[in-house]
Amino acid sequence: MNQDYIKASPWSIIEEGFDRERVKSSESIFSLGNGAMGQRANFEEVYSGKTFQGSYIAGVYYPDKTRVGWWKNGYPEYFAKVLNAPNWIGINVWVNGEVLDLNTCKEVSGYRRELNMKEGWYKRSFSALLPNDAHIEVGVLRFLSLDMDELGAIRYEIKALDADLDIGFQPYLDSGVTNEDSNWDDKFWNTTEVVSTERQGFIQAHTMKTHFKTCTFMQSQLFLNGNLVDVFPEVEKKEQWVGHRYAHKLAKGEILALHKFGGYTVDRNHHGDELVQAAKTTLKKALELGFDTLLERQRSAWAEIWKMSDIAIEGDVKAQQGIRFNIFQLNQTYLGRDSRLNIGPKGFTGEKYGGSTYWDTEAYCLPFYMATKNQKVARNLLKYRYNHLEKAIENAQKLGFSNGAALYPMVTMNGEECHNEWEITFEEIHRNGAIAFAIYNYCRFTGDYSYIPEMGLEVLIGIARFWRQRANFSQLKNKYVILGVTGPNEYENNVNNNWYTNYLAKWCIDYTIAQLRKVKEGFPDDYRRVVGKTKLGDNEVSQWKKVADNMYFPYEEERGLFLQQDGFLDKELLTVAELPSSQRPINQKWSWDRILRSPYIKQADVLQGFYFFGDHFSEEELERHFDFYEPFTVHESSLSPCVHSILAAKLGRTEQAYTFYLRTSRLDLDDYNKEVEEGLHITSMAGTWLSIVEGFGGMGVLDDTLSFSPRIPEQWKSYSFNVNFRNSIIKVCVQKEVTEFEITGEEIVPILVNKKGLELVPGKKVEVRVS
Amino acid sequence: MNQDYIKASPWSIIEEGFDRERVKSSESIFSLGNGAMGQRANFEEVYSGKTFQGSYIAGVYYPDKTRVGWWKNGYPEYFAKVLNAPNWIGINVWVNGEVLDLNTCKEVSGYRRELNMKEGWYKRSFSALLPNDAHIEVGVLRFLSLDMDELGAIRYEIKALDADLDIGFQPYLDSGVTNEDSNWDDKFWNTTEVVSTERQGFIQAHTMKTHFKTCTFMQSQLFLNGNLVDVFPEVEKKEQWVGHRYAHKLAKGEILALHKFGGYTVDRNHHGDELVQAAKTTLKKALELGFDTLLERQRSAWAEIWKMSDIAIEGDVKAQQGIRFNIFQLNQTYLGRDSRLNIGPKGFTGEKYGGSTYWDTEAYCLPFYMATKNQKVARNLLKYRYNHLEKAIENAQKLGFSNGAALYPMVTMNGEECHNEWEITFEEIHRNGAIAFAIYNYCRFTGDYSYIPEMGLEVLIGIARFWRQRANFSQLKNKYVILGVTGPNEYENNVNNNWYTNYLAKWCIDYTIAQLRKVKEGFPDDYRRVVGKTKLGDNEVSQWKKVADNMYFPYEEERGLFLQQDGFLDKELLTVAELPSSQRPINQKWSWDRILRSPYIKQADVLQGFYFFGDHFSEEELERHFDFYEPFTVHESSLSPCVHSILAAKLGRTEQAYTFYLRTSRLDLDDYNKEVEEGLHITSMAGTWLSIVEGFGGMGVLDDTLSFSPRIPEQWKSYSFNVNFRNSIIKVCVQKEVTEFEITGEEIVPILVNKKGLELVPGKKVEVRVS
Repeated sequence: MNQDYIKASPWSIIEEGFDRERVKSSESIFSLGNGAMGQRANFEEVYSGKTFQGSYIAGVYYPDKTRVGWWKNGYPEYFAKVLNAPNWIGINVWVNGEVLDLNTCKEVSGYRRELNMKEGWYKRSFSALLPNDAHIEVGVLRFLSLDMDELGAIRYEIKALDADLDIGFQPYLDSGVTNEDSNWDDKFWNTTEVVSTERQGFIQAHTMKTHFKTCTFMQSQLFLNGNLVDVFPEVEKKEQWVGHRYAHKLAKGEILALHKFGGYTVDRNHHGDELVQAAKTTLKKALELGFDTLLERQRSAWAEIWKMSDIAIEGDVKAQQGIRFNIFQLNQTYLGRDSRLNIGPKGFTGEKYGGSTYWDTEAYCLPFYMATKNQKVARNLLKYRYNHLEKAIENAQKLGFSNGAALYPMVTMNGEECHNEWEITFEEIHRNGAIAFAIYNYCRFTGDYSYIPEMGLEVLIGIARFWRQRANFSQLKNKYVILGVTGPNEYENNVNNNWYTNYLAKWCIDYTIAQLRKVKEGFPDDYRRVVGKTKLGDNEVSQWKKVADNMYFPYEEERGLFLQQDGFLDKELLTVAELPSSQRPINQKWSWDRILRSPYIKQADVLQGFYFFGDHFSEEELERHFDFYEPFTVHESSLSPCVHSILAAKLGRTEQAYTFYLRTSRLDLDDYNKEVEEGLHITSMAGTWLSIVEGFGGMGVLDDTLSFSPRIPEQWKSYSFNVNFRNSIIKVCVQKEVTEFEITGEEIVPILVNKKGLELVPGKKVEVRVS
Repeated sequence: MNQDYIKASPWSIIEEGFDRERVKSSESIFSLGNGAMGQRANFEEVYSGKTFQGSYIAGVYYPDKTRVGWWKNGYPEYFAKVLNAPNWIGINVWVNGEVLDLNTCKEVSGYRRELNMKEGWYKRSFSALLPNDAHIEVGVLRFLSLDMDELGAIRYEIKALDADLDIGFQPYLDSGVTNEDSNWDDKFWNTTEVVSTERQGFIQAHTMKTHFKTCTFMQSQLFLNGNLVDVFPEVEKKEQWVGHRYAHKLAKGEILALHKFGGYTVDRNHHGDELVQAAKTTLKKALELGFDTLLERQRSAWAEIWKMSDIAIEGDVKAQQGIRFNIFQLNQTYLGRDSRLNIGPKGFTGEKYGGSTYWDTEAYCLPFYMATKNQKVARNLLKYRYNHLEKAIENAQKLGFSNGAALYPMVTMNGEECHNEWEITFEEIHRNGAIAFAIYNYCRFTGDYSYIPEMGLEVLIGIARFWRQRANFSQLKNKYVILGVTGPNEYENNVNNNWYTNYLAKWCIDYTIAQLRKVKEGFPDDYRRVVGKTKLGDNEVSQWKKVADNMYFPYEEERGLFLQQDGFLDKELLTVAELPSSQRPINQKWSWDRILRSPYIKQADVLQGFYFFGDHFSEEELERHFDFYEPFTVHESSLSPCVHSILAAKLGRTEQAYTFYLRTSRLDLDDYNKEVEEGLHITSMAGTWLSIVEGFGGMGVLDDTLSFSPRIPEQWKSYSFNVNFRNSIIKVCVQKEVTEFEITGEEIVPILVNKKGLELVPGKKVEVRVS
């Protein structure tokens, strides 16, 4: 925990004071991204203290050869590593010939970082007394342009404080970078060309094995007291490095500023031979516009994003800061412009977890993007999986499945499995269900059914086939069972009949059969195409149905309880409250076997099912299961508190929901798990949004109608958010006594509030009393 | 499978013909050992083809830093690697200036290897036409002395076939060796001194981290047509290498022989500063005796071993060769002279599995050593675990156990756990039971109870405490359950209530309580000492009893079947016979999850319990369980067929028992699993011995009396073996119609044959008709 280190502020993340031990964690928290690239908040100038260097390009990865202690048949050959990309932000700074390095300065004062979320920039300022007694004031402002997403800009200002000074700036590019995470210390980048023109620098490099081609580029300008100093830099070139050196005298009180423009052009967007040309075009435009105009455009672009996605909370600055930080980071990570990209668990803020796509995308992130962007963005997320269907079928084949059964990978970059723990890779198969659920959720929310006949049906068929083959008939139970799985609660491995998995499996089959019928009737051409392509026979579908109709669910009569898995009640059922705090977190204190045989739940499992399928269960059932499972839940996954928050809100336990909300929304800002230096928990940030909108706001779709059941935590005066429901923007403002609804757009939209129908008419604000 | 490659012969292992693809597998099969050191059958001269170099010193290992893909809390820091030791066998050979290398010869003919098991030596002979057309006949005989167990000897003879030749020999020592198996490519050996006197060479080296000090030494003699040529060699020295070069002219038809004596002195046996001196003493004695006398002594020493441990089979050469190979290798690996040593799964024949001690020792090897050596040898095996008790308690503490609970490691060298797969390291806890069972088995067979008050009781208390803490009370079942284990069948992981484990756990507690009572009565001083040391209270014992008395056993009423674990009957119960052969072995063809959810059993599990506790179950119960589990057993562990062979024999299914017997006895000779090049399956070789003595011979101890129920496979005319039962040697010869018993020693020993009592009187052969 790191509580109160980050200053509370509604729109900014602020750090005050220079603390060497916080550098790595702040590098994570102050990260920047624009959906196409991102970077940790590393210093531009030399820093000899502890740092974790990270600059990332969306979709650029390296297949690092798998390293395991004991190989198991079926393990993937490689793990896709998020790749530290060539450095374009670097600026060496000399003051009177001495290198500026905050780690060696005699004194650093007034140190302050601000991440301005409203406008999308990051600023660092401080005064430094160098070992040679030179005294300077520094202000550095940096942003990654939303407008031109291959471009970033830095304004590095130095003011001479006590005396005249000689200042040297050397902006540089460096492709000699390494990953912190590497299995075999492979070389990840191959630099093919280092070029410098009079004012511009370019490094062409491609990743080894995957051969993603990139051009890292830069051009800088020097300003004295705001006036351009038109000099040519002194060029220095090395094998994987190019620097442009500028030097200038600075009188006491004067300010020297370097504007550095840089970034990456990549062959995802350009022909591989034209990356330098593309970089030149970008630089030309950047120079024409200039730093200030680019910054102005950055403000506008973020204003546009916030207009739709902001959640305003009155009366609770920390909660406000938390949710905005979450929304800001989600938007920095993924903007939905490119269906080849996805949302990595650490976004552009660290290397951990590799890969880019987990079931987090479908289970947690999709609703956020559906409601705060247009439906094309959400559709791109679905399309990503459609594009990976062939690979998912191959993946299932490797594990012994046949006939087009598809198993989506646990972790992936390009559709191939990257993970290699057998209990997860092979057994955490519920992920397949989340992908089908996302299709359902998308159609339900957007009303866009066309995705199913066009693409979704094929995905559903692959998934239904998988479940049919993965279940087996138990003579003893006279039911179909699913043996040897790991559910969402990864503190149980290789269990039989995980209720959540079995429930999803049955639902997937039922849903697929229903869609087959619907597509057959409504889209006969698509139906013929899909049935032909998948060679689906009627007999096969009736086999699916047999499995779904006869699925076994572990259940205990006496308490009327769905059991997380077979045998759950044989455990020693001590609650988390009975566990000494010295024993927590159990994943750090206990050996794995002890965790496994304990009743402790890492993240919502049965309750995840109650969240997905809220309308399948009565409130009494929800309450019974919540009261049984919550006391055993240790929430040692970032994806857990949000689900519990939503369900607690649904049960009217607003105070408890609020506690879970705070935990999820400030997880990284307050560094709950003492690991923020590894990067941020991006995907769980979507869960925070869900906690407010689906939890407190009680938003859902009932009978094809948008529905709300607003509640408000005692600590808040009001909260408001927008939802794009089928291209109408609905603004919801929940206050202590009333909830206000407003709609923009052309259409009248019927909604349900506390299950009562009303109509939202453009231009007319509606107030409903909070029940 | 490699059937018929090794020539059938009752006392020898013979290979004929040079096959580059077989070099590595034959290096395993022709391995030599003398309990203190051992080596793969690598060529002395240069070989540029595929080879796996291995020379091993008992008890010398390296703690290689653990490498895993995903670290789990509780994993050990290192894995003890069996270490390829400095090479002392190397001899460079030149013929007319050309290096002899079988891989580059124009022609190799008459190539033959023989491992003479009766006399304990290994010979390789061939004719070679070198690239320079020099034509020679070579014969190389090598043995590791049983008599002087730091010494090995080589006689390398070359005959000039077609013309006069210049021969050069360069015997050398080389400590610049590497391991095939290394996690981090660490340097394993540090060479501290390379010394050469006029005729002797020494390399002092110690292992990194563990600091085992060794001196590798050599001295050679040259003989022309049998006459000593008294020359000084030309000495060559490098950083980790020393060579002695001899050169001589050889007329056509003449024979030049090099006798090389070498080996290791180690600081397990000598003071670390006196290793060179000890080596000199050994060399002096070796030179005084000379090669022929040493070989003669080798013959006698092996004759002594065979006198007691041979099993002679009449009428079936392959079965005969198989069992002798097994007995030979067991004796090469472990002679029971040193309680600091143990029996590694690959002995001195490869690196795989690292460590030296698995539960194999107690479950499979102990009975062999009890019956074919004196009881001190078996006692040394038990003492080994007593010496590791503190470490076993520490190991349990690391996993969260307390109060002196002991969990013996899955794999160990010095008592510390080396293995790092959570499902095995943390969960395959039945190993603890095998250690208790071995104590019981030892007392039962040898009649030596003294081990228990002296040492065993402490071990039993540690184990009982472990089971008490590892079981938990299930409210639902109103019984104690043991959750999250892996049984002997490693094709099931993290299961609940593995019947074998639960049964052993209960038995361990019951047995410990019984011994506490017995020691209290019979050895009150020991009792006081042990109770004081372990701080054992009466209340604690009654808690144990509660667990043992209320242990849960998975059972199915309808079939009257103990279930391997909870939920076993939910599987798709297809037998092995229904599995296409293309799918086998499943551990190579199937992904791990598929194996886990299948009903296929890697090795005897419930049936292992029926083997250990044969007298707890009726023959009907045995038959029922054998008939249920055998059809699901794939025997993909080398430890499985022997148990099934014994139980099949017990059920009178001699033909089936014979099939299992062949599989176990010729596993390596016929290379069933296509992996013999990695080394031999040493510990399962004890299982082969069990198949004959306990299986066909039906040997056991009933009511403190040695008992037999002899049966004979149809293919055999007779078989005979000796048993040292409480210091009387009983020779058993089973023929088609009768079984002959003979006893040597002073005492009259009552035995049971087919449950009928008779007395064996020294000097009087007794015949009993086979029932």
